[in-house]
Amino acid sequence: MIKTSLKAYRKKTKKSSNLFKKSKKLHVNGVHHNIRYFDPYPFVVKSSKGKFLIDVDSNKYIDYWMGHWSLILGHSPKYVKANVKMQLENGWMHGTVSKNSIDLSEKISKAVPVAEKIRYASTGTEATMYAVRLARTITKRNTIAKVDGGWHGYTTDLLKTVNWPFNKSESSGLIDEKHIESLPFNDLEKSLKILKSKKNDLAAVIIEPVLGGGGCVPATKDYLLGIEEFCHKNNSLFILDEIVTGFRFRYGCMYNTMKLDPDIVTLGKIVGGGFPIGVISGKSEFMNYANTSEFSKTTRAYIGGGTFSANPLSMMAGNSTLNTIKKKGNKLYQKLNDFGTETRRMLDKKFDGNVITTGIGSLFLTHFLSNEIYEITNASDAAKCNIEKLHDYHFHMIANNGIFFLPGKLGAYSDIHTKSDINTMAKATDQYLTTFKK
Amino acid sequence: MIKTSLKAYRKKTKKSSNLFKKSKKLHVNGVHHNIRYFDPYPFVVKSSKGKFLIDVDSNKYIDYWMGHWSLILGHSPKYVKANVKMQLENGWMHGTVSKNSIDLSEKISKAVPVAEKIRYASTGTEATMYAVRLARTITKRNTIAKVDGGWHGYTTDLLKTVNWPFNKSESSGLIDEKHIESLPFNDLEKSLKILKSKKNDLAAVIIEPVLGGGGCVPATKDYLLGIEEFCHKNNSLFILDEIVTGFRFRYGCMYNTMKLDPDIVTLGKIVGGGFPIGVISGKSEFMNYANTSEFSKTTRAYIGGGTFSANPLSMMAGNSTLNTIKKKGNKLYQKLNDFGTETRRMLDKKFDGNVITTGIGSLFLTHFLSNEIYEITNASDAAKCNIEKLHDYHFHMIANNGIFFLPGKLGAYSDIHTKSDINTMAKATDQYLTTFKK
Repeated sequence: MIKTSLKAYRKKTKKSSNLFKKSKKLHVNGVHHNIRYFDPYPFVVKSSKGKFLIDVDSNKYIDYWMGHWSLILGHSPKYVKANVKMQLENGWMHGTVSKNSIDLSEKISKAVPVAEKIRYASTGTEATMYAVRLARTITKRNTIAKVDGGWHGYTTDLLKTVNWPFNKSESSGLIDEKHIESLPFNDLEKSLKILKSKKNDLAAVIIEPVLGGGGCVPATKDYLLGIEEFCHKNNSLFILDEIVTGFRFRYGCMYNTMKLDPDIVTLGKIVGGGFPIGVISGKSEFMNYANTSEFSKTTRAYIGGGTFSANPLSMMAGNSTLNTIKKKGNKLYQKLNDFGTETRRMLDKKFDGNVITTGIGSLFLTHFLSNEIYEITNASDAAKCNIEKLHDYHFHMIANNGIFFLPGKLGAYSDIHTKSDINTMAKATDQYLTTFKK
Repeated sequence: MIKTSLKAYRKKTKKSSNLFKKSKKLHVNGVHHNIRYFDPYPFVVKSSKGKFLIDVDSNKYIDYWMGHWSLILGHSPKYVKANVKMQLENGWMHGTVSKNSIDLSEKISKAVPVAEKIRYASTGTEATMYAVRLARTITKRNTIAKVDGGWHGYTTDLLKTVNWPFNKSESSGLIDEKHIESLPFNDLEKSLKILKSKKNDLAAVIIEPVLGGGGCVPATKDYLLGIEEFCHKNNSLFILDEIVTGFRFRYGCMYNTMKLDPDIVTLGKIVGGGFPIGVISGKSEFMNYANTSEFSKTTRAYIGGGTFSANPLSMMAGNSTLNTIKKKGNKLYQKLNDFGTETRRMLDKKFDGNVITTGIGSLFLTHFLSNEIYEITNASDAAKCNIEKLHDYHFHMIANNGIFFLPGKLGAYSDIHTKSDINTMAKATDQYLTTFKK
């Protein structure tokens, strides 16, 4: 780590330093999500507003993490906030069928045609867990295939080949890994070979159209189409995990733009407006296996929700967010996508061949080339890059420029960002390059 | 079902009937939690306030379901609401370390001494999933024991022997059931015999001190002490699931009152004030296995987390709820516990030996005796009672008296209930008995 950045960070985050010591006493490693920790200690947030995170020392950071990329309108947009406040007056927890969920589902099912039937859970982890259970129920098979570097939350059913090295278990205490098969992302030939070898027990393949945690790498259209074709011929389910990509590039899912025909789509993040949500949706014929009024105890897929599923507050925040996006129309996405394109181009130019900035639309991540990696087409390529330099670069901007990326993770533009933010990032990058050369 | 009740219900819930048809088109079985469906259709809630649920036809129901028993202060208590509104101004999703989680954990760790280290998840399902993963990691064993009728959420790791008949799988698509062992609740001798037969692979036993979904049946102190003793001698973890019971009977957990010494305690519901939360807490030596800064990829327990974990809004609602409870002091619990005791006594008297009303403190459930069941000590006893009559009784009160129990599920008193509510329930019960005799 660059010493001057470390010094600058420590100097400006004294209250955070003390509070995080307290947090470490109370909490495992001081955090509630493993990736939220970074060296020497993460600053402690006091509030967030618009494009800023504000820490307990009153430092402001332009936020590109944006609540795990869920806040496409920025922090606390007015219209969403006003509606949520109104909902607070009408109760935040009904615990039974609530009108708000009907309103949200009408919007989602129009924008995402495959979402013929919807069920809400409270997190993405739950949504993918249910998707797996559903696929196994429908097919009466056990094997689920995912890709190397695919991240579908913490569910036991999908906890394999998430982090590098992919040949090592993600955790002790997992007993289910043998039922998970892993595919090399974007390598159709090798992936199909593996799928063929498991075809008789293959319940489903689950894929993110853009690797999120795995390094901001889009899947090629051919790859997704090839996997889909195999699944459909093999009577296996083709599940798209659009928790990150849903409503990120357009008002709807990414699969529509590729003329894909997934059986199940999982959603989250943006459709909840930053409030807890997980969505499992898909074709009626498949989703209906979860119908406890039609299927018996042993033949049903016992899925969703939980105490907080479809709570009126998350539903209201989702409704209001989708309303706002829809109203802004295509201009919003055009702006965000342009910002992304410009930023990728700017960063690649500044780093002069030493990085590749991957991504699509408003998502981007800078990979520092090393280990004879010259292109990034999957999570292995991303993992072989110089992760330490990436952390340094991100930390440098946190310490010196008031710019926040969760170190090592991809950034996302929100409606609240402006063109000037690209310039600010460009200047910060210049400064980093100068410091680094010293 | 009693025909007059059905007629009355249909008459007063016309808008609900239409809206629920829409909900069925959009959602599997129209609901987002299987238990929220009841015949002929559940009413659709428009708002909730104080002790009332209000449906779209403007019918008011005195609510005993209270958001899956999470709202111990009733719907939208003023102080909690005001603080949550303030938090909305300061951001609802920080996505990194936030001061609010430190504040809440200071309260919980003081009130629940075994919570030496805490991690927040977003649901109870996630919390118990992590507890299982942690136990398997620590012990390097696979088997988890639970009790017949024990409900720990939808996690694949614990989905067995939840609903009657316990010898039948809870769902298709589960592949993990062989690692779950089930014990007869409150039968120490038989339970120990099973545990002994599995002792070399026994990672943990997980138990609710009061069966919630399983029929509102408290565990005996001797049972819990006996199981705990076996676990500790066998180097297995003793996990108490206090998601329902934590802060329900006192400011803290139920285990303290029994001088139990659990290794891990899961919490939820009340500590989040009705906002999405799941808590995994326990002794430092065990919780620390989740520390990714100290343990490697393959030796750690990869636990929680998620996008929404420790979100500042849930943390604020939890903080404000615990503040309010603490301020009200023992009087609050005295009142709630008295209401429970009085209600159990009243119902047993009214039904004149035909029911047993189980429960403890502010929780209660009326079991209609049948099949030569004369006492309710476990979930099998509860399941063998006349469930249809129970549903009829609850539905009768929904249709005719504006009293809401989720049919078949236990009721809970909240601070917002008053003594007059017991009288209202008594009168409604009289009316049911008269109608039923006709």
